Amino acid sequence: MQGFSGINKMALAAAALAAVAAAPAGSAELAVKPTLADVIKASTPADWRPLDPDNTMYLELPAGRVVIEMAPVFAPAHVDNIRTLVREKYFDGLAVIRSQDNWVVQWGDPDEINRRPMKTAKSSLTGEFTVPLKNDTSFTRLPDRDGYAPQVGHSNGFPSARDPKSGRAWLAHCYGMVGVGRDTGADSGSGSSLYVVIGHGPRHLDRNITVVGRVIAGMPLLSTFPRGAGAMGFYDKPELNVPIAAVKMAADVPEAERSKFEVMRTDSATYKAAVEAQRNRGGPWTKVAAGHIDLCNAPLPVREQK
Amino acid sequence: MQGFSGINKMALAAAALAAVAAAPAGSAELAVKPTLADVIKASTPADWRPLDPDNTMYLELPAGRVVIEMAPVFAPAHVDNIRTLVREKYFDGLAVIRSQDNWVVQWGDPDEINRRPMKTAKSSLTGEFTVPLKNDTSFTRLPDRDGYAPQVGHSNGFPSARDPKSGRAWLAHCYGMVGVGRDTGADSGSGSSLYVVIGHGPRHLDRNITVVGRVIAGMPLLSTFPRGAGAMGFYDKPELNVPIAAVKMAADVPEAERSKFEVMRTDSATYKAAVEAQRNRGGPWTKVAAGHIDLCNAPLPVREQK
Repeated sequence: MQGFSGINKMALAAAALAAVAAAPAGSAELAVKPTLADVIKASTPADWRPLDPDNTMYLELPAGRVVIEMAPVFAPAHVDNIRTLVREKYFDGLAVIRSQDNWVVQWGDPDEINRRPMKTAKSSLTGEFTVPLKNDTSFTRLPDRDGYAPQVGHSNGFPSARDPKSGRAWLAHCYGMVGVGRDTGADSGSGSSLYVVIGHGPRHLDRNITVVGRVIAGMPLLSTFPRGAGAMGFYDKPELNVPIAAVKMAADVPEAERSKFEVMRTDSATYKAAVEAQRNRGGPWTKVAAGHIDLCNAPLPVREQK
Repeated sequence: MQGFSGINKMALAAAALAAVAAAPAGSAELAVKPTLADVIKASTPADWRPLDPDNTMYLELPAGRVVIEMAPVFAPAHVDNIRTLVREKYFDGLAVIRSQDNWVVQWGDPDEINRRPMKTAKSSLTGEFTVPLKNDTSFTRLPDRDGYAPQVGHSNGFPSARDPKSGRAWLAHCYGMVGVGRDTGADSGSGSSLYVVIGHGPRHLDRNITVVGRVIAGMPLLSTFPRGAGAMGFYDKPELNVPIAAVKMAADVPEAERSKFEVMRTDSATYKAAVEAQRNRGGPWTKVAAGHIDLCNAPLPVREQK
C-alpha cells in the first residue's frame, strides 16, 4: 500500500538513491519515518486480539471464505437474529444478488415470489441505527476532524462516530463495513439480506441503517463481482447470482477448520502509531505529509495466526 | 444509488405506504425532497457539456472501452506527453498489471527487462503535483469542510482542492481519478504507467502524485479485475495481465466510433442542487439527513448523448 513504484526493482533502487542525491531545489525531502509495515512489525502480542468465534461469521462462496466480525455492542438484536438465521441455515443456498460499482455488494434471497421461510428468526426488527454513548465503552477518539460527526474513532476495531450532544454512537460506513438491507420502513430489516461497502465510504448512510460488522478477510472476493446491470446494481439475470454455499458461525466450525485471524487493538499505543504512520508519512517516496487522516482511511491491521 | 430496498417491488410499495402511515413514535419522517435523479431529470441542455475529443482518451480493453477525461489545466506537460504516447501507440499491446483492493488498478509495460522504447515522448517529467491557484479559473467551492485541504470543490468536473495561503491548487484522489505512477523521485513519472483509484479516496496521495484526469465511463471494467497476489497488488503471473488492445485519443477516432458522453457543469445551479440532494436527502427512505458531503461523495453526473 506504500506507493506507485514500477515493478523493476533495480530502477526503484536507483531512483531511491537518485532522490537522496538530488532532491529538487526548494523542496526538502521528508525525514524517513516508521511506515505502517514497520509499526506492525514492531508490535507485541498484547497489541492484537483474536476474533471471538461467537461473533465471527463465515460466508462460504465458490471462490473462498469471507470472514466477518460482528459488532453486538452496536446492534445487539440484529447480531442475535443473524446468528439465529445462520444456525437455521437460512443463508445456505441463497446468493449474492447485487453488485453496484463504488457502492455495495449484497446477498439474500434471490427468489422474489417464494421467499424462504424463517424458523425461529424474526423477519423484522427495530432499527439499531445508533446506540447510547454509554454502551460503547471502548471508543478511542481520532484527533482528526470529520464532516459527518462531532467525534470519530474506533470502538474495539470498528470505525465509529458519536455525538456527545445527542448522547448517541454509531458505526461508520467505511470500506468493508457490513450493513442490514431494509425497505423504506426503519424497522423493516432483519439481517436476512446483508450488504458490504465496496467503494468510497457512503457516510451519509450512517444513522440510517443498522451496521452489524466488518469484513476481516476476503474483501477481494466481494469487491470483484461483475457489477449488476439491473436497477441499483441488482443482477438482471438469475444465472448471474453467485450462490452461497453456506454461512456459518465460527463457533460452530471445528477448530481445525477455523480461520485464525487477529486484529490490532485500536485502543493500543501501537495502533496510535499505526494511524500516525499513515497520517504523516515520512519520505523518501512521500513528498508532502497529509497531516490528517480520514476515518475511513485509518488502517485496521489484520494478521493470520500461524 | 438510492437505497437498500429488496427486489420485490410490491413489498417495497407496501413498505413505503406503511412508513407514511406509521412513522415510529418520536421520529418525524423527513420531508420528501428532489432526489439526485429528480435534479438530473429537471436539468436543461445548458447544464451539460460534451467531452473535448482532444482531452478524451479511450482505453480499449477486452471487455470494452474505458473513457477518460484528461485535465490539462492541472497537468499540462503530462497530458501532453500522454497524448504523444497514445499517438506513438506506446500503450497498444501493453497491459493492466496491477489491481490492489481498496486502492488502485494500474497499467503499463509488463516487461521488466526489455522496456518498450518511446519515440518522441519524454521518459520522465517534472512532477505536476500542484498548480498555481490562478491557473484553475473554474473552481466552484463546496461549503463543506475537509480534513485534507483548506478548500475543496470542483474544477470543470474534476474534484479539486486548494490552499489560498500557499497559492496552490490540485486534483483530489477520489474514486475513478487517474494518476501517474512514479518511482521515488518526484520527477520520475512520465504518464507511461497510469493508475485509477478503485477504493476509498486515498487523499493522502494528494500533492504527491501528478493527477491527470478521471474515468467518465467504464469504471466497472477496471474495478472488478481480480486483485493481484504480488506486492502492492501487482500480478505475480504474466498470464494474469490484462492486455490493452489500444489506447486512442477520441480526436483520432472516426466520429461514428466515438463515445458521446456529456458531463454536468459543476459551476451550474443545477450542479449545486445535485450536490444538495445528496448532502441532505429527503424522506421517506432516509431518516437522518447527513448535513454534509465529503468531496469524494459529491456526485459527478455523466450521461450518454443519444
